[in-house]
Amino acid sequence: MRGVIMHAPGDVRVEDREDPTIVEPTDAIIRLAATCICGSDLWPYRGVDKLDEPMPMGHEYVGIVERVGTEVQTIEPGQFVIGSFMASDNTCEICRAGYQTSCIHGEGVGEGGAQAELLRVPLADGTLVATPDVPANDLVPSFLAASDVLGTGWFAAVAADVGPGKTVAMVGDGAVGLLAVLAAKQLGAERIIAMSRHQPRQQLAREYGATDIVVERGDDGVARIKDLTNGLGAHSVIEAVGTQESMMQAIRATRPGGHVGYVGVAHDVQLPGEEIFFSHVHLHGGPAPVRQYLPELIDLIWRRQVDPGKVFDLTLPLDQAAEGYQAMDERRAVKVLLQP
Amino acid sequence: MRGVIMHAPGDVRVEDREDPTIVEPTDAIIRLAATCICGSDLWPYRGVDKLDEPMPMGHEYVGIVERVGTEVQTIEPGQFVIGSFMASDNTCEICRAGYQTSCIHGEGVGEGGAQAELLRVPLADGTLVATPDVPANDLVPSFLAASDVLGTGWFAAVAADVGPGKTVAMVGDGAVGLLAVLAAKQLGAERIIAMSRHQPRQQLAREYGATDIVVERGDDGVARIKDLTNGLGAHSVIEAVGTQESMMQAIRATRPGGHVGYVGVAHDVQLPGEEIFFSHVHLHGGPAPVRQYLPELIDLIWRRQVDPGKVFDLTLPLDQAAEGYQAMDERRAVKVLLQP
Repeated sequence: MRGVIMHAPGDVRVEDREDPTIVEPTDAIIRLAATCICGSDLWPYRGVDKLDEPMPMGHEYVGIVERVGTEVQTIEPGQFVIGSFMASDNTCEICRAGYQTSCIHGEGVGEGGAQAELLRVPLADGTLVATPDVPANDLVPSFLAASDVLGTGWFAAVAADVGPGKTVAMVGDGAVGLLAVLAAKQLGAERIIAMSRHQPRQQLAREYGATDIVVERGDDGVARIKDLTNGLGAHSVIEAVGTQESMMQAIRATRPGGHVGYVGVAHDVQLPGEEIFFSHVHLHGGPAPVRQYLPELIDLIWRRQVDPGKVFDLTLPLDQAAEGYQAMDERRAVKVLLQP
Repeated sequence: MRGVIMHAPGDVRVEDREDPTIVEPTDAIIRLAATCICGSDLWPYRGVDKLDEPMPMGHEYVGIVERVGTEVQTIEPGQFVIGSFMASDNTCEICRAGYQTSCIHGEGVGEGGAQAELLRVPLADGTLVATPDVPANDLVPSFLAASDVLGTGWFAAVAADVGPGKTVAMVGDGAVGLLAVLAAKQLGAERIIAMSRHQPRQQLAREYGATDIVVERGDDGVARIKDLTNGLGAHSVIEAVGTQESMMQAIRATRPGGHVGYVGVAHDVQLPGEEIFFSHVHLHGGPAPVRQYLPELIDLIWRRQVDPGKVFDLTLPLDQAAEGYQAMDERRAVKVLLQP
């Protein structure tokens, strides 16, 4: 099969690779209908995350089940399925509490690399969720979004305690942040402030439900949020970047007693204890337990209530993955869909 | 009147001071029935917090209202009242959300120093809560505890999402930690693990509802909590110290999806973003909005359902405050009650 390998920062190649096989009797092999490039793939691409050896890339996937191991009971060949980047048994105490990304038997799905034609998914029964039927082609991008960015944005909104009557602010206008806006709207937020200085992203944020746009960043951005909220700050702030600046911007834009939901993978972040203490904010986040939300998200997409697939503003054949990485790195594209 | 002044680390004196007067029409002056020394008073006593000039000490108080300003409407002379260390209007949006310690008109009550015979309390209507009648003498220590340590322990337990079926761990066996155990019991926790290596404090923790005692600290303490919780960590962990070690101990003793409630005033704490991110814990805490819980706590004490006054294991006349500070500094006493 063909698959994406990152050899070094900026050096992404599509190569012939061994087809994945059933390793554990709980595995499934799926043939990808679509895959994509994640904002987090840019950390090694930009050399921020160290790369020790050539690495298969990708952890977002939808497709048709080709084969399953002997112990797989609920997932069957022919089904169209979606799963998260973290395989989970979905039965342990941590999974049942809704934290499948911390499953005690959890393992990454990305090791084989989902930017490929075929993917091995461990713990298939716990990890994969089937759609009611094989979906129409135009729904595929939205289901692919559910695999990570929609589920992550949704978790961020839940972690930020978004709900009716709340004012929500969103820091980070990538696909996750934009879909957190969509989630906030679905969860009933009264007012949604998107922090973004890029016109096309502002436009999509508005389509997804943003009521206000703030272009300022850092302390100026915080001041604008306070201006818009009676001097108090937002009830709920979503952080979808993962830098020191974005975390502090999120914390400082939150009112006392409010909630910060953070899903940007933290890079060199140190939270000052004393400021956090006196801020009175709630902090929650981490790797989104997307699995928890998949049934609900699949239902919303199947009934065409939401259109998260719009975050894909560039579609390329898998073999042109390198161009996709470059486009995202240069912020020419929000998110790139790859067709195997 | 007589009142406590700290002149320098380790140098606490009881001196003749000016009686406080009504400054704002919303003030009340109360004659203290009892006051006490707080664990946080030890920070400047030990030279950890810098002292720029001689400082009146104390922020915990119960007593009889002597006089009120012209705009005070609900509080009357003769009432026995309790208030928190932070005066609050109890009507602003932040107060109504339950964060009176971040009231937009809030101000500290401690400036005048509650370790004294008389105290000026700003925003009397919002700050003070009266008991149903002047209480029996033996209830006074418990009401005094409600002024800070009980309310703070209660907030810690609420912030840690304590509830039925939950396993709770408590880091910090001072008065706040011990009363957090009491709060956890009242809030229905199934199992309460107190981390303490001091026999008298262990004993009081057990009286308040602790089901297990862990004497290990740091990484060993975390390992013991995991041993006791199926390898997962506690659902709810209460942090009542405020050091880097105690915060990390609390965070690491919490299971993914669990809650850390922190009330130890943070001193030189830096929270590592990446570890927090992958820990999947909820973090909440800060200066406890004691005012929120006073009606409920007063009711519990009035009906003798709880006995938080037991944390006072040394009672001294106000004039012997210096000995009280020394006893707490040397951990000979958990908490010292001073009688004006």
